Amino acid sequence: MIFTKGYAVKSPASAFEPFDFSRRDIGPYDVHIQILFCGICHSDIHQAKDEWGGSIYPMVPGHEIVGKIVNVGNKVSKFKIDDIAGVGCFVDSCGNCHNCQQSEQQFCEGHLSLTYNGTEKDLKTPTYGGYSNHIVVNENYVLRISSKLTLANTAPLLCAGITTYSPLKRFHTGPGKRVGIVGLGGLGHMGVKLASSMGAEVSLLSTSPSKENDAKKLGATHFILTTNPQNLEKYTQYFDLLLVTISAKYDINQYLNLLRTKGTMVVVGVPEHELSLKPFALIGGNKQIAGSLIGGISETQEMLDYCAEKNITSDVEIIPIQNIDLAYQRILKSDIRYRFVIDLRSIEK
Amino acid sequence: MIFTKGYAVKSPASAFEPFDFSRRDIGPYDVHIQILFCGICHSDIHQAKDEWGGSIYPMVPGHEIVGKIVNVGNKVSKFKIDDIAGVGCFVDSCGNCHNCQQSEQQFCEGHLSLTYNGTEKDLKTPTYGGYSNHIVVNENYVLRISSKLTLANTAPLLCAGITTYSPLKRFHTGPGKRVGIVGLGGLGHMGVKLASSMGAEVSLLSTSPSKENDAKKLGATHFILTTNPQNLEKYTQYFDLLLVTISAKYDINQYLNLLRTKGTMVVVGVPEHELSLKPFALIGGNKQIAGSLIGGISETQEMLDYCAEKNITSDVEIIPIQNIDLAYQRILKSDIRYRFVIDLRSIEK
Repeated sequence: MIFTKGYAVKSPASAFEPFDFSRRDIGPYDVHIQILFCGICHSDIHQAKDEWGGSIYPMVPGHEIVGKIVNVGNKVSKFKIDDIAGVGCFVDSCGNCHNCQQSEQQFCEGHLSLTYNGTEKDLKTPTYGGYSNHIVVNENYVLRISSKLTLANTAPLLCAGITTYSPLKRFHTGPGKRVGIVGLGGLGHMGVKLASSMGAEVSLLSTSPSKENDAKKLGATHFILTTNPQNLEKYTQYFDLLLVTISAKYDINQYLNLLRTKGTMVVVGVPEHELSLKPFALIGGNKQIAGSLIGGISETQEMLDYCAEKNITSDVEIIPIQNIDLAYQRILKSDIRYRFVIDLRSIEK
Repeated sequence: MIFTKGYAVKSPASAFEPFDFSRRDIGPYDVHIQILFCGICHSDIHQAKDEWGGSIYPMVPGHEIVGKIVNVGNKVSKFKIDDIAGVGCFVDSCGNCHNCQQSEQQFCEGHLSLTYNGTEKDLKTPTYGGYSNHIVVNENYVLRISSKLTLANTAPLLCAGITTYSPLKRFHTGPGKRVGIVGLGGLGHMGVKLASSMGAEVSLLSTSPSKENDAKKLGATHFILTTNPQNLEKYTQYFDLLLVTISAKYDINQYLNLLRTKGTMVVVGVPEHELSLKPFALIGGNKQIAGSLIGGISETQEMLDYCAEKNITSDVEIIPIQNIDLAYQRILKSDIRYRFVIDLRSIEK
């Protein structure tokens, strides 16, 4: 067994505290990764606080993992010791269903082992995430990370990157397309960088005037302050694609009005509340609302390779692991531009 | 001017009554159609009663028009006297915008002249629909009707047919696909016929057990009584495509749960109320909700040619024009299988 140090919450209201546990010894197809950096995703907070229900405690969150391979099983063919590797939102799946066969493991019809707050294939052993210094994962669920990329800034690509890359590709973002990113947080700032790198004209829609400068630096051509109805009026039927990254309650119909004929609004943020939809806002213009959930292993690798080629990473603030609670508080106040990343070297202190 | 007899309502609460008016003399690109049959669409009722607001009175509804060409302008190249022709939901558009150029005139960014309850290019002259014995239309907005088809049964294709055909094609209905049609009315019965003709496995979802036999006769393999939650449970993640034709308030999320990964729910019915959407019902499975509004001239012609080839028409009950009010009452009680069609010969009586 591999002795592992992590930080865990023991109940929805607990603070994080040191938590020692064991990772399994590597099997023939496993790689053992020494974790270097792990991003903090908003979904870590939802799950640590049991806001989605069904949380498993003690919980070691973290699914934006980058590290160095320190050992490999005797049948591993894709990785070798000293390679840089990443782990995203899941660490195993059935491998046999229609979706796994198409490398869309996030929709596995068997058992998907989430990186944390889930269970292994045995449906019993809890999974622990990247707020820890070691992890053992089957090589088929591990991503190659280019040595060109700055590692701390790369960690958030494993969730925020693929969450925005996948729908941008699915809905044909490219030159001549007008893409609106709604909300400038962890997801939104990746959305702006990726959509502009693909050649689209990018607009950032936000309720916060203070985001304008950043939006433009990140690659947005237009900044649209959505609290002013006249601004929205001006962009009626303007966009081919809107990527809505916000988790607060919002007016779907207002955004549908900004879409051109056959335009698509993609929902990647998960508001707790139900949203109200006027059917005619969809019908008048053959518009669509689509959901998008991370991406499979192949597409995540494609995204990482694309980001290496284009030199795209996340804007981060690096913290020691002792500061997770503080980071959570600041995320809830939107006081982060744009992702906290834990430096796991701090765990030895 | 062409003397025309029609039936009109003069206010939202009025009964239909005879209404004489003039159609314009044919211009060089116009055809003069003697109307033989006109279907009664549920949207005729909404507009006659001003339920969508902004109705123009007197109103002569009707946009499911089939007739015989009795005269053509001197530059008309697509039609000749004695041809059978159809007119659908619009009779003119700007012709220049992006959507018109792609023959998606229903989304004209200039002025779309609806067949009734609209205005001509001058934005003043009211348009009158097919509850009348003559109509004059620019040849570019007239459809060819095969002489193979039974004309009374063909009229509803001009709205109910294209409304269901267009989304079925857009979302790749064909062999190996599981398509659910929600609601068995004027739209739903065309949806079942068309989807099964395309080779899909078709299910009919309805709140009414009395529709089961008809659904199966029309081509459905499964009948799913939606009032029983266990029936819905059984079809969780089953469908590639759901075509929702109902206009009553319904639970979107319940239907999204019936879709497979990457499945699409198309909304063609227009409930008056807003519908409540749970974002996670879309995100978990990369699902989509799409709107669909009739079709352009090219696609409507494609649908008519397809129906002629496959011998698909609507199930109708033919009525004299004097019985419109009675037909409206029966439609509101769902007492029609599945479309009323006015025989315009009756107008002379």
